[in-house]
Amino acid sequence: MAKSRGERRLPKREYEARVPVLRAGLVQMQVALQAAPFSVVLVIAGDEASGKGDVVNILNGWLDPRGVETLAFHEATDEERERPPMWRYWRSLPPHGRMAIYAGGWHSVALAEDPHSPSELAEFDESLRRIAHFERLLSASGALIMKVWLRLSKRAQRERLLELEASPDTAWRVSPADWKCHRNYDRHARLADRMRAATHRTGAPWHVIDAEDPRARNLGVGEYLLARFRAHLRTHGRAAAIAKPRRVVSLRPSGLRRLLALPLTQRLSQDEYEAKRDKWLGRLNRAVRAAAERGRSIVWVFEGWDAAGKGGAIRRLTSAIDARDYRVIPVAKPTDEEKSHHYLWRFWRHVPRAGLMTIYDRSWFGRVLVERLEGFCTEPDWQRAYVELNDFEAQLVGHGVIVLKFWLHLSRDEQLRRFRDREQVDYKRHKINAEDWRNRRKWQAYEIAVGDMLALTHRPRAPWHLVPADNKRFARLEVLKISCKQIAAALEG
Amino acid sequence: MAKSRGERRLPKREYEARVPVLRAGLVQMQVALQAAPFSVVLVIAGDEASGKGDVVNILNGWLDPRGVETLAFHEATDEERERPPMWRYWRSLPPHGRMAIYAGGWHSVALAEDPHSPSELAEFDESLRRIAHFERLLSASGALIMKVWLRLSKRAQRERLLELEASPDTAWRVSPADWKCHRNYDRHARLADRMRAATHRTGAPWHVIDAEDPRARNLGVGEYLLARFRAHLRTHGRAAAIAKPRRVVSLRPSGLRRLLALPLTQRLSQDEYEAKRDKWLGRLNRAVRAAAERGRSIVWVFEGWDAAGKGGAIRRLTSAIDARDYRVIPVAKPTDEEKSHHYLWRFWRHVPRAGLMTIYDRSWFGRVLVERLEGFCTEPDWQRAYVELNDFEAQLVGHGVIVLKFWLHLSRDEQLRRFRDREQVDYKRHKINAEDWRNRRKWQAYEIAVGDMLALTHRPRAPWHLVPADNKRFARLEVLKISCKQIAAALEG
Repeated sequence: MAKSRGERRLPKREYEARVPVLRAGLVQMQVALQAAPFSVVLVIAGDEASGKGDVVNILNGWLDPRGVETLAFHEATDEERERPPMWRYWRSLPPHGRMAIYAGGWHSVALAEDPHSPSELAEFDESLRRIAHFERLLSASGALIMKVWLRLSKRAQRERLLELEASPDTAWRVSPADWKCHRNYDRHARLADRMRAATHRTGAPWHVIDAEDPRARNLGVGEYLLARFRAHLRTHGRAAAIAKPRRVVSLRPSGLRRLLALPLTQRLSQDEYEAKRDKWLGRLNRAVRAAAERGRSIVWVFEGWDAAGKGGAIRRLTSAIDARDYRVIPVAKPTDEEKSHHYLWRFWRHVPRAGLMTIYDRSWFGRVLVERLEGFCTEPDWQRAYVELNDFEAQLVGHGVIVLKFWLHLSRDEQLRRFRDREQVDYKRHKINAEDWRNRRKWQAYEIAVGDMLALTHRPRAPWHLVPADNKRFARLEVLKISCKQIAAALEG
Repeated sequence: MAKSRGERRLPKREYEARVPVLRAGLVQMQVALQAAPFSVVLVIAGDEASGKGDVVNILNGWLDPRGVETLAFHEATDEERERPPMWRYWRSLPPHGRMAIYAGGWHSVALAEDPHSPSELAEFDESLRRIAHFERLLSASGALIMKVWLRLSKRAQRERLLELEASPDTAWRVSPADWKCHRNYDRHARLADRMRAATHRTGAPWHVIDAEDPRARNLGVGEYLLARFRAHLRTHGRAAAIAKPRRVVSLRPSGLRRLLALPLTQRLSQDEYEAKRDKWLGRLNRAVRAAAERGRSIVWVFEGWDAAGKGGAIRRLTSAIDARDYRVIPVAKPTDEEKSHHYLWRFWRHVPRAGLMTIYDRSWFGRVLVERLEGFCTEPDWQRAYVELNDFEAQLVGHGVIVLKFWLHLSRDEQLRRFRDREQVDYKRHKINAEDWRNRRKWQAYEIAVGDMLALTHRPRAPWHLVPADNKRFARLEVLKISCKQIAAALEG
């Protein structure tokens, strides 16, 4: 099987003839990318000593450094360890119009776990599943994802390590760990196969390149990058045209039924409210401190009709919590950095550290509410979102985060009363505008979208809590009570 | 001295009459703030048990949570500890049009060090100096900075602690540490006095409020906030008009003389270059690894004329470094999140962690080059910037970061040759545009600005390295050589 070195190698002359053509193409690519409505993710992974770092450096040499960034994942920081595993990858993503080269990517982090036992292998598979889901999300949102695996045979790996060791300038690159890795070549190759099989999908396929001949390897990576980019530009070069939203039809009527069946007549007098409020505030305070002591974070999600009292409910809630431990994230118009990322990026940004709390005043569910109804995304986008949102919350829950989702429900008449009241009161007037009145006219369409959301994103460990909110005092107390009970249940469970 | 409780207290009726007026004012303030070209920083600090958390919660109740965020600094994370001390505060700053309430602020972090020994006190004073500088920067850029100190007498503190302990709902808020703090009241009060004296400046003054009466305290904070905001809106409500840049006159001609004296005739043949390049790349590799082993970060700053070869020099440099350990930050047009922060915020963002490297392809010096000459900031802005930039770099150096600043110098003729060459070569054409030609016509004005920069920001521990760049090979080798020598010197020093 031994081949003489140099056999089947790309001649230097041919390499030197092809590189300038490739470089010109890559630079044109970068110019086109600047205006493109998508980002480019290029993962360079591969066997030990296959030259991942060299390839990354050579690509950086060919490309204009403006618009491209090279990223690698070192040992997780405490800020990263205190969030779900994918958080560090989310925060590293390039915006539209830019490209990131990932040396090793998230795949190398998974492989570095070097699983042996069945339970380690099960965890490995779980992390591969998360990775596959992550890449599916990105690719569905239009990102160009390229994953290159540089393959080096065991023989070639040995030769390469010996070659590196021979020169004083490169000997530092070979460590005892590399030789250990070489002795375990077959096992590592099997793990890498397993990894690639689990994460090879349309939109995020693996492309394996033989790395024995560095010139062929370099050209192979560069030409693959260019070909994929050109094809992607043809299909994704313009933002997808969004059809006018059609008549809103329920996907899962059980949610709407649940919504309409909610009684809204509960009342609580000021005296009753005050008699109970402090007790529940005290309980909530003890509950959140108990959660913090166990390093559990809490995420509150407040959704509801305009004027349903989300802000008031949040203020009551936070009055029981140390101001240093929570953040309220009002979800309004995204910034341009947010707009040029995946729609979940802006929520991942604010996932709390261990023992801390984030309160989202409106949330990721905007995707299946306002964005569905106003045509801010395509129909496939919002239809896919139910699964994406569930998975996002599953990642939070899987990491130990307590997720509390509230829908504050209001009758249409009560909303009208509150709109009119807001227009009367000086310091409330800014809270009401033409858009609120417009949304109100679409009440029935929203009801259907809310129903679908309730039905399709109600999960055992991240359930929806429907709160009758025609009476503000009743609603606020309900939010307190449910929060206390759910936190207690999560800490016991 | 004992006063009966309730004496001189604000009557509840008066409080309830004044709060709605205040709230209306605060909400109008928030509406006005949304469109204002500045951010609002409100620090609520004070003696133990003075009700800082209560005040923060009450303010949150009065304000609309949209547009305001409450922040507090817990123990520094490893990502924070690996950067200069002020990094964590920089990354927390609100953008224009938004407000942040800091519970305790950076001041409480400094006070929490509880310095005793002379050396601890000297370090305390140094952190106060950094804080004062930080606040001066922010305020000079137009931010509204309010710092409230809630004062509680020793007697009132004792009463408050006993009162909290008496109720089961609030007893949790009193810890043994609070009583210890109470016993050391006088010493803590002296430290707080020292802190306030050192950080009390025009633009960022301390406002002391007696916290014994919670109602008076709450109103005092709210009314102070509103009054300061209204005054600030009058003076800073519109972005400062920028006068057309006047004739460019050198501030410190020694820099221009240094620039013009630089010989540009050095040449290096391809053979000479190749003979030496690999030796220096090897040395550089060993140098950066030695720095990383000691946890020292490196920041490279590349400035130079258009077409001076910054990108090429960076590519040679990075070819000796593991791609996982550096990031190249091309400094182009800021994003809107960057534009709505202090101009240094976008550079603070990318300060590397311990042992890692950031290469800035253009940098903060844009403030005294393009922004000075094109009128992107006011004359006081760029004149002040020399000190600000020096201080920024001093913070990096003070934290152990090795700062390497290069000015790649070119003759005007050579630039012309390169511009024309770029227009000829396919994959270089995108690098040249009308703006480059426009800048070229302002060569002499830029020369003066560059000279001033060289003279005014050349510091012993962050010196400028002038590199003759008419010959690319010579320039690249110079950058490698100087980098090696400077890193070695920094590790020895």
